[in-house]
Amino acid sequence: MEPTGNKSGKKKVVAVVGGGLGGALNACYFAKRGFQVQVFESREDIRAAKVVKGRSINLALSHRGRSALKHVGMEEKVVSKGIPMHARMIHSLKGNSFALLQAVASLGACQIMKVSCKSFVTRFLCDFSAAAEVYPNTKLNFDHKLQDWNAETGNMTFVRADGTKEHIEADLIVGCDGAFSAVRKQFMRRSRFNYSQTYIPHGYKELTMPPIDGDFAMKPNYLHIWPRNTFMMIALPNLDFTFTCTLFMPFEEFEKITTGDEVISFFQTYFPDAIPLIGAEALKRDYFRLPAQAMVSVKCSSYHIADKCVLMGDAAHAIVPFYGQGMNAGFEDCIVFEEIMEQFNENLSEVLPEYTRVRVPDDHAIADLAMYNYVEMRAHVNSKWFLFRKYVDNFLHALMPGSIIPLYTMVTFTRTRYHKAVERWQWQERVRKV
Amino acid sequence: MEPTGNKSGKKKVVAVVGGGLGGALNACYFAKRGFQVQVFESREDIRAAKVVKGRSINLALSHRGRSALKHVGMEEKVVSKGIPMHARMIHSLKGNSFALLQAVASLGACQIMKVSCKSFVTRFLCDFSAAAEVYPNTKLNFDHKLQDWNAETGNMTFVRADGTKEHIEADLIVGCDGAFSAVRKQFMRRSRFNYSQTYIPHGYKELTMPPIDGDFAMKPNYLHIWPRNTFMMIALPNLDFTFTCTLFMPFEEFEKITTGDEVISFFQTYFPDAIPLIGAEALKRDYFRLPAQAMVSVKCSSYHIADKCVLMGDAAHAIVPFYGQGMNAGFEDCIVFEEIMEQFNENLSEVLPEYTRVRVPDDHAIADLAMYNYVEMRAHVNSKWFLFRKYVDNFLHALMPGSIIPLYTMVTFTRTRYHKAVERWQWQERVRKV
Repeated sequence: MEPTGNKSGKKKVVAVVGGGLGGALNACYFAKRGFQVQVFESREDIRAAKVVKGRSINLALSHRGRSALKHVGMEEKVVSKGIPMHARMIHSLKGNSFALLQAVASLGACQIMKVSCKSFVTRFLCDFSAAAEVYPNTKLNFDHKLQDWNAETGNMTFVRADGTKEHIEADLIVGCDGAFSAVRKQFMRRSRFNYSQTYIPHGYKELTMPPIDGDFAMKPNYLHIWPRNTFMMIALPNLDFTFTCTLFMPFEEFEKITTGDEVISFFQTYFPDAIPLIGAEALKRDYFRLPAQAMVSVKCSSYHIADKCVLMGDAAHAIVPFYGQGMNAGFEDCIVFEEIMEQFNENLSEVLPEYTRVRVPDDHAIADLAMYNYVEMRAHVNSKWFLFRKYVDNFLHALMPGSIIPLYTMVTFTRTRYHKAVERWQWQERVRKV
Repeated sequence: MEPTGNKSGKKKVVAVVGGGLGGALNACYFAKRGFQVQVFESREDIRAAKVVKGRSINLALSHRGRSALKHVGMEEKVVSKGIPMHARMIHSLKGNSFALLQAVASLGACQIMKVSCKSFVTRFLCDFSAAAEVYPNTKLNFDHKLQDWNAETGNMTFVRADGTKEHIEADLIVGCDGAFSAVRKQFMRRSRFNYSQTYIPHGYKELTMPPIDGDFAMKPNYLHIWPRNTFMMIALPNLDFTFTCTLFMPFEEFEKITTGDEVISFFQTYFPDAIPLIGAEALKRDYFRLPAQAMVSVKCSSYHIADKCVLMGDAAHAIVPFYGQGMNAGFEDCIVFEEIMEQFNENLSEVLPEYTRVRVPDDHAIADLAMYNYVEMRAHVNSKWFLFRKYVDNFLHALMPGSIIPLYTMVTFTRTRYHKAVERWQWQERVRKV
C-alpha cells in the first residue's frame, strides 16, 4: 500500500473504532490518504490469539467487496487465500444432489470467493501495520473498549481490561464496531435519528464436517444447500479441507431438541446424507456446544454527526445473511466514501452529509432485499417453481444480457447501486407480467 | 378509589417508573389490586411546580381512554375538567371556516374531550395519594431518576438531583417512562428485542391564541384545522379561554423562517385569519420561544422480561399525534393488563407473556395507522375528494351502522381491537371497490 499524502495539507486524526473486517479495510483507505489513523479494537490482537472468540460465520466475497479491496491493492492477496465457488449444490431429502449453475459468464471475472474472517482480518492488519511504519502517528490499539465519546469535541474515552482509561481526541471518528456498535449509542441519544433493529424468528448453529482421507468430504467449489421449507442447512469449504455447516431454523425448533439422540433423529428425518459426513458422535456433541445464535437486521439514518463522526459497515447496516452481501456492502461503503472524499477534496463537512445522502438508500435496499430473500427462501427454495424461475431468469439474461439482468446478478456481480438494482428488478417484474 | 386487596394473598412490590399520565393511572390500577405500589418520577412533584417544563401538547380523550378511567372511578372527575369537542372546523385559505360533523350519534356517549396534561396528572396523583394513606407502603417518589436496573433480581438504582443514590428491589417493574424510556434501555441490551424509532420529517411549534373580551377567540367546541398540503395548523381550546395552536411543518420549512417579519409574511400567505387572533407582536415573539419539536414513532416487541418487567404507554409504543390516540392507547394498556391480571389470577409469569401476545399487534396497528394518517392528511386533507370520502363514509355508516363503520369511528369511539379495526377497514375498502 502506497500512502498518497493528505491533499488538504493538514494531517487530521482519524479514529477508527473496531478492528474487524470493515475497520481494518477503512484504516487502509484512510492511511492511503495520509491521515493519522488510529484503530481501536476492544479485543486482543487477532493475529496473536490462539482461539478466536465468536463465530466463524462464513463470508462470501463477490464483486463489490473485491472492487473495494482492489482499490487498496489487496484483491489478489485475499483472493489467493479464498476458495472459489462456481455454483450452488442442492441436496434433496432423498440424498440426491444437483448443481445449480449461475449464468455469470457474460459478466467476466465475477466469481464468488469463500474467505475466512480470521485470515482476512489478519491480512488487513498486517498491511495496515506496514503503513503504520511510514506514519509514526498511525497505530493499532487493541484491548481498547470505547466507553464514551463527545460528538461536539471528538473526545473519546476508552477503557482497558485492567480498568485503566485512555482519553483521545480525534478530528473524525469512524464507527466500524459492528451490529451492536458503541459509537452508535451516541447517535441514539440525539433527536431525529431513525433506527430499527429486527430479529428474525430463525437462529443458526454451526457444525464442522471433517475431511475424509485428507480431502474435502463433498465437492469444494460449491455452496451446498439443503433446503427444507422452514429449515435450511448450508455448507461452505475451508482451506483446511473441512466444511462449516450452518443450520438455520426457528428458535422454537432448536429448543425442541434437547438430547444427542434427538439430534440424530432430527438429522435422520431432514438431512440424512449429512450424518455420516459430519459423524454421529461429533454431531451429538457439537450441536450443544453453543446456543442457537440470533440474526438481526439493523437500519438507521443518518450515518453522520456534523463533520465529526460517521458509521460504516454493520454499525450502520447489519443485514441478515441470506443474500451473501453483508461483508460486500460494508466493503463497498469504503469505496463509496473514498469516491466522495475525492469529489469534495476531503472537506469533511461536505463529505459526511453527502455520504449519508448517497449511501442510506442503497444500504436500506440491500437490508430489505436480504430480508425479502429470507422470506422467499423459506417459502420457495424447495419448490420446483422457484428453481424454474431461476432458470428462466438466467436464460433470459443469456439471450439478452443488456436488458434482462437477474436481480441476483446485479447485486452480486456488478456495482449497480443497490436501490437502483431493486428498482430495475421491480420494473422487470412488471414487464414479465405483461 | 377503593382498594380490593391482593387475591394471591401476598402483597408484591410494584415499582412504576414514570409519574406522568400512564404511570399515574397504572399506579391507581395496581393500588386498587392491593399491591405495594411505589411510583418513581425523575422530575419534581407536578402539583407543586409553578412552571411545568416541557410542552403542553394537546390531549384528546376519547372512548378507550374514558373506559380505562371509568374502571378506577375517575372518568367523571376528569371529564368535568375537559372541554367537549363536537366536530372539526376547517379554516380555508380565504378565511372561510366550515364545520365537519362526525356521525357519532348512533354510538351513544362518545364525545372527544380535550384535557390538559397537568390537570390530568394532578388529578391522578391526588387520587393515588388518597390510596397511599390506606397502604402505608405505597408512595410517590419524586426527584428519582432511574440509573440502572437488573432484570434478573429486580434491583433498581435511582439517582437524585443532589447525587445521592437509592436502591430498591421490586417484584414487578412497570416502565411508564415515555418515548425515551430508561427502563427500555435494559430491553435494548438483550438479544431478540425488536425495536424501531422513526422520526417524521415534520416538526411542530405551539402558539397561544388569547381570549377576546374574556371569551374564546373562536368557537370552543371544535378541533380547528387549517390544512395547507404539507403544512397544517390545529387549535384546541383550554379552560382559561385561550386556544393552543400547533403548527406542523417540515423542519426545513421552519428553518427558512428566521425573523419576526418572515413569520408574519408566512402567516399572511398561509394562515391570514389567525394573525389578528394570535396577535402580530405575540406571533413574532412566541414563534422563536422554542425550536421546532420532533415527533417520533416507537415500536418494539416484546413488552416484558420474564415475570419481572413490563413496558406500557409511550415507553412501549410512542405514536405520532395524527390520530389523537396516543394517550388513549396508553390508557387502554392499563385496562388490557387489568383484564389479563383477572384472567390469570395475578400470576405474573403468565400475565406478562400474555400481555405481550395480546397487546403488541394492537399497538403496532395504531402506530401504523397514525403514521398512515400523517401521510394521508398531508396529501388529501385539503382536497375535495378527501372531504367527500369522509362524508360518504359517515353517510354509509348512518344508513347501515352495523355493517359499514368508518375506521375513525372504530378507533375513536369503540374498543374494537386496533388491529381488528384495521383488518375490518381493509375488508371494507375491498368491498367498496367491488
